[in-house]
Amino acid sequence: MSWEDRVRKVVPYTPGEQPKTDHVIKLNTNENPYPPSPKVAEALRNLKTDDLRLYPDPAASDLVHAVAKNYGLKDSQVFVGVGSDDVLAMCFMTFFHSKDPIFFPDITYSFYDVWADLLEIPYETKVLKADFGIDPEDYLAPNGGIVFPNPNAPTGQDLPLSRIERIVAGNPDSIVIVDEAYVDFGAETALPLLEKYDNLVVTQTFSKSRSLAGLRVGCAMANERLIKYLNDVKYSFNSYTMNRPTIALAKACIEDQAYFKSCCQKIVATREKTEDLLRKLGFILRDSKANFVFATHPERQAKEIFAYLKSRNIYVRYFDKPRIDNYLRITIGTDEEMETLAGALEDYFKRSEI
Amino acid sequence: MSWEDRVRKVVPYTPGEQPKTDHVIKLNTNENPYPPSPKVAEALRNLKTDDLRLYPDPAASDLVHAVAKNYGLKDSQVFVGVGSDDVLAMCFMTFFHSKDPIFFPDITYSFYDVWADLLEIPYETKVLKADFGIDPEDYLAPNGGIVFPNPNAPTGQDLPLSRIERIVAGNPDSIVIVDEAYVDFGAETALPLLEKYDNLVVTQTFSKSRSLAGLRVGCAMANERLIKYLNDVKYSFNSYTMNRPTIALAKACIEDQAYFKSCCQKIVATREKTEDLLRKLGFILRDSKANFVFATHPERQAKEIFAYLKSRNIYVRYFDKPRIDNYLRITIGTDEEMETLAGALEDYFKRSEI
Repeated sequence: MSWEDRVRKVVPYTPGEQPKTDHVIKLNTNENPYPPSPKVAEALRNLKTDDLRLYPDPAASDLVHAVAKNYGLKDSQVFVGVGSDDVLAMCFMTFFHSKDPIFFPDITYSFYDVWADLLEIPYETKVLKADFGIDPEDYLAPNGGIVFPNPNAPTGQDLPLSRIERIVAGNPDSIVIVDEAYVDFGAETALPLLEKYDNLVVTQTFSKSRSLAGLRVGCAMANERLIKYLNDVKYSFNSYTMNRPTIALAKACIEDQAYFKSCCQKIVATREKTEDLLRKLGFILRDSKANFVFATHPERQAKEIFAYLKSRNIYVRYFDKPRIDNYLRITIGTDEEMETLAGALEDYFKRSEI
Repeated sequence: MSWEDRVRKVVPYTPGEQPKTDHVIKLNTNENPYPPSPKVAEALRNLKTDDLRLYPDPAASDLVHAVAKNYGLKDSQVFVGVGSDDVLAMCFMTFFHSKDPIFFPDITYSFYDVWADLLEIPYETKVLKADFGIDPEDYLAPNGGIVFPNPNAPTGQDLPLSRIERIVAGNPDSIVIVDEAYVDFGAETALPLLEKYDNLVVTQTFSKSRSLAGLRVGCAMANERLIKYLNDVKYSFNSYTMNRPTIALAKACIEDQAYFKSCCQKIVATREKTEDLLRKLGFILRDSKANFVFATHPERQAKEIFAYLKSRNIYVRYFDKPRIDNYLRITIGTDEEMETLAGALEDYFKRSEI
């Protein structure tokens, strides 16, 4: 046996492209078009370089407390990590530790199967309905755990709380993770179910609605026992995940609810305008509850539109995957950016007509 | 089966205490007593809050390049992570993926067995010699991988390069990780061996010699194939581990070699003075090559001294473990801090005489 045989070999997740040039309209990784709260800028100015010689608080207590306070939870019900990817990776590692397959939708966040493969967790995907909806009944068979985003990505479609409750209530013997990366743009959070169910984990991120993708902050909310198990795994992997700047800036961010709400409202308003613009151009799309839309065109190949937009320095996301390979996922930017997008698409359709 | 049966249950690593008060001499977690380079302060001032809405470069290319340049390596030979704990966790996950037991010393960094337990990696510990030295011959039996710190922690003792080479050369079929968290305080780095051996991984941290424990930065250096495997696992766990402030500040830090060297020299000089002070008080200790000393007293219980110092607001580290439960690990602070420590110890011995 060579050392090569002892290596864990995996096919990694492919993150959306991060172009290094500035002259780009970036609608490909669901970032927020608005800067973080001015309170974050203030916290940044108040950081003391000299403090960086000391380890951060391994429990990130200040941040945990701010998150708990924001959601009316106890500190012991909150876990924080390096983006919700870190939080979800820790959740997979902690809660999906059995021989039974975990369930998630066939069309969903493309990191779920990557984590399952990495951690050697058996899984079964549940086929979304023709309208890309999640059917709770699909998730009531015996399983090793369940994870799905609400709203789902890249479809942008949400599941009402009653249907989420059906899944959580129907699986008392496994953990159900509701990945709420995009919940703040119009879907219902499952947090109220925490009081009633001990098998529910809700994850959220500061990367989308809180404009802090560059800081890497995510959180999980659950009952105290689950959070304790999660922390045990975290402290067995990396004691100090949240650095000093992150704890200070993320705390300042979540404390500014007014700014957060006003950004979300602006994005929802722009999303509605964008949906109209795209429909006028012949795109077919369902109403999104996220900060992106998922659109297909009956007469044009998504892959071609994607390439054309890229040539115009407008980056959107294209997934070369079964069932969704004729769709584009387009992040909601500012009104101006979306009008530029619509203008470029108009040019594209005109050009293709010739 | 209940959900509780599906949970991965582990006994986590216990990080050193992080007292929340300021009036403490903190010699318990091997932090650097000197602030980070002024270049780090400059990089902090230059950070733009508005950029935080965008994801960081998932490859942290600027930082990887700065590290590679510093060590005369190719960028493709460098991996960066959230402290060397993150880097080592990723290395364990990637390279120790077989049924054969990995080897590490019985007295060493107390995270190794925690990672092995978490990741269900079989392991065997190799008993340090009576003088707390590592015997390379112990590491030549068939194994699934090898990891040891150089200098070792908490003993502070180093292994010369020729003996490290014996271990690396003697294990062509498994990966050998040399954890160089403390190498900059006087031991020889194994980096020159990278040209000759494809089974070697060297890890380092910015937390000790570079005064950035609060920023969480570590790195691994190896041949390109190993780094590729490591990145595949990283991108299967969390694509964006290094946030924007970290990439910018750590880059500024590693580019300031002059400041780094002068801090290391000061710490080495203080360590030598501290060793003299402690020996005068009757402590027995070997010359350390790290930024801490490991000392025992023939007439006093280490646990008692530890408690006394804590009552004086001086924190050192005590491990309640077989063979080392009568030792204290004392981080090297400033000259002034070490003199205060020596004064407190004098008081302790006077008091105990009465």
